[in-house]
Amino acid sequence: MAKHAAGKQAGAEARAICETHLRNRGVALADLAELVLRLQCAFVPGLDAAECLESVEAVLAKREVCNALLTGIALDELAERGALPEPLLSTVRHDDPLYGIDEVLALSIVNIYGSIGFTNFGYLDKVKPGVVGGVDRGGHADGRCNTFLDDLIAAVVAAAASRIAHRHRDTLGEAAWMGPGTPVRHVDATSRAGPA
Amino acid sequence: MAKHAAGKQAGAEARAICETHLRNRGVALADLAELVLRLQCAFVPGLDAAECLESVEAVLAKREVCNALLTGIALDELAERGALPEPLLSTVRHDDPLYGIDEVLALSIVNIYGSIGFTNFGYLDKVKPGVVGGVDRGGHADGRCNTFLDDLIAAVVAAAASRIAHRHRDTLGEAAWMGPGTPVRHVDATSRAGPA
Amino acid sequence: MAKHAAGKQAGAEARAICETHLRNRGVALADLAELVLRLQCAFVPGLDAAECLESVEAVLAKREVCNALLTGIALDELAERGALPEPLLSTVRHDDPLYGIDEVLALSIVNIYGSIGFTNFGYLDKVKPGVVGGVDRGGHADGRCNTFLDDLIAAVVAAAASRIAHRHRDTLGEAAWMGPGTPVRHVDATSRAGPA
Amino acid sequence: MAKHAAGKQAGAEARAICETHLRNRGVALADLAELVLRLQCAFVPGLDAAECLESVEAVLAKREVCNALLTGIALDELAERGALPEPLLSTVRHDDPLYGIDEVLALSIVNIYGSIGFTNFGYLDKVKPGVVGGVDRGGHADGRCNTFLDDLIAAVVAAAASRIAHRHRDTLGEAAWMGPGTPVRHVDATSRAGPA
Repeated sequence: MAKHAAGKQAGAEARAICETHLRNRGVALADLAELVLRLQCAFVPGLDAAECLESVEAVLAKREVCNALLTGIALDELAERGALPEPLLSTVRHDDPLYGIDEVLALSIVNIYGSIGFTNFGYLDKVKPGVVGGVDRGGHADGRCNTFLDDLIAAVVAAAASRIAHRHRDTLGEAAWMGPGTPVRHVDATSRAGPA
Repeated sequence: MAKHAAGKQAGAEARAICETHLRNRGVALADLAELVLRLQCAFVPGLDAAECLESVEAVLAKREVCNALLTGIALDELAERGALPEPLLSTVRHDDPLYGIDEVLALSIVNIYGSIGFTNFGYLDKVKPGVVGGVDRGGHADGRCNTFLDDLIAAVVAAAASRIAHRHRDTLGEAAWMGPGTPVRHVDATSRAGPA
Repeated sequence: MAKHAAGKQAGAEARAICETHLRNRGVALADLAELVLRLQCAFVPGLDAAECLESVEAVLAKREVCNALLTGIALDELAERGALPEPLLSTVRHDDPLYGIDEVLALSIVNIYGSIGFTNFGYLDKVKPGVVGGVDRGGHADGRCNTFLDDLIAAVVAAAASRIAHRHRDTLGEAAWMGPGTPVRHVDATSRAGPA
Repeated sequence: MAKHAAGKQAGAEARAICETHLRNRGVALADLAELVLRLQCAFVPGLDAAECLESVEAVLAKREVCNALLTGIALDELAERGALPEPLLSTVRHDDPLYGIDEVLALSIVNIYGSIGFTNFGYLDKVKPGVVGGVDRGGHADGRCNTFLDDLIAAVVAAAASRIAHRHRDTLGEAAWMGPGTPVRHVDATSRAGPA
């Protein structure tokens, strides 16, 4: 259908722009996919890196995700070049933990796949595993600023994990999760820490 | 693909549950589609009721939308039967404008299609056109409570309008909106009041 | 108490920075207060411009509000100078209605006083009365960009209106709103369109 | 001033209602204060349990926080009594990780003190330390349901931690955090993991 094809093409362009901007800042989509796999592998039997990468790409194909990424990365780069006005420049440069606008942009990404992603986002932002930690530390090197970037990629990972959780449920069907014959304790134990 | 088909089926079930619950509360999907058409017809040439209905149905097929709807409608019905504890019962029954939780559930629906839907949601909730106003007034009749329902359907309409705005843009392509040859003034005038 | 005094001083500094930046973009706090009065005067007997101005000032004294304002205004000014990278530059310059990040920053302001402010925000952003419309139109003049500013000031007005609604309720007491002797119909009629 | 006193009284009543409902569900405010202390003690020299308790109480005095708590606890209790309609009853009873509405209510609490609280909320919801874990496990006992409660108390703790971070900054002054003479590396290291 024409409409569907047009949507696919617009999404592919958004994804390509995001991928380029992320690569320029040292982030490969495969790094993000690896974190998605780490978060979800215990809860989705047979999940592999390819499916995680596909989910990351689907998130980046969303217009609002792309806009949040481009805006945040632009602010990081403007801060590096000293091109923001004060006092905003100092706030962004020093990654002031009370700034809050980096989280605001990140949450707009997480929201796209529903509130279940907030838990994973918060966890990634606190513990900073893998590429999230690398980006955070890299932002404190001489002349570098990743104030927005670490939050934004944590949000993309959390959104991609939520997307997989929703799809996996669709495939299994509700019965497999909550049917009367299901050992509830077990389902809860697995699922709790899982998608959310 | 199996995964895609499973997602379609899960969505169809969610939509059917929502449709039933809305019908039981006096809301037809066609009423919602009519409001979507009213909001978007000036900005999407050739938009018709059928496309608006399809968009409403797509919104209701999302798991988180369905959960928000079922939770809000349950609270309205529990309030009608006096089955909530005080002081919550009085707050919900009187549609206390400082309650806030009705808006919180509504916003979780709007969020699914991005922040551009918030403007339409606020407008619908303030002006209360069509079925939104009917549901609001109906909630003040003897023994009736629609504290959540009017906000929830305004959110579904706003989300469906956002979805159409995004898809229409995809079809037109960015060039038609923002290309260097586009008469910017005109595009802005049209688009501003449009999707958002 | 030392802590309280320190908080007051930090707030006063944030407010002063916001006031300066808004004035530089042609927005006076009195213009914002006037819109707050217009929104709330029907619901708060005796409300005057001075109380509305005080509420606007209190909103601007919040750190996160100040950060959202400074970030959005910086992006508008960078767009005017052509100092953002493409495709972000075109998106911001043309106030693309599907951009969404202007609403995202605005919502972070509204949130500070709870979800009841979302309705007023959406209404202001759609109808664009007073200074909100002036700023929006001014942003389409040659070389000017107010993509963020119109949403941000609508959010400040909505937040200030919510703050007044909460405080007015505190003064009246719950009884005056929802007590068993209250004519419920009347309270609902008044309150509905009121704060939210 | 009359208005200030009225606000204080309304807040005290909201707090007392919350405290009672939490105690009925086995949660003491001191348990929440302990988690706040655990989160913030490394970043706020001299922080003690009394200040954390005061911050928890201030969060519970907010009307929207109180409304979110009462609504979520009511839904948990209705689920325990089988008084919700299906399929909502099964979803809430089994703490379905894709439900999402428990997180939606929790986020409305976190929002009150700005987006910096989201990281701590996500962390608490994932790792489930102290009383958050106790409540979560208790919700899986026979006939018990804490689907909302564990998220809600994690949100109260995260909000109280954000409030302390903001106040501590006010007292120290911006200079101590970001002044030109400040060893930036150290400030960043401390602050990063801190409030947010």
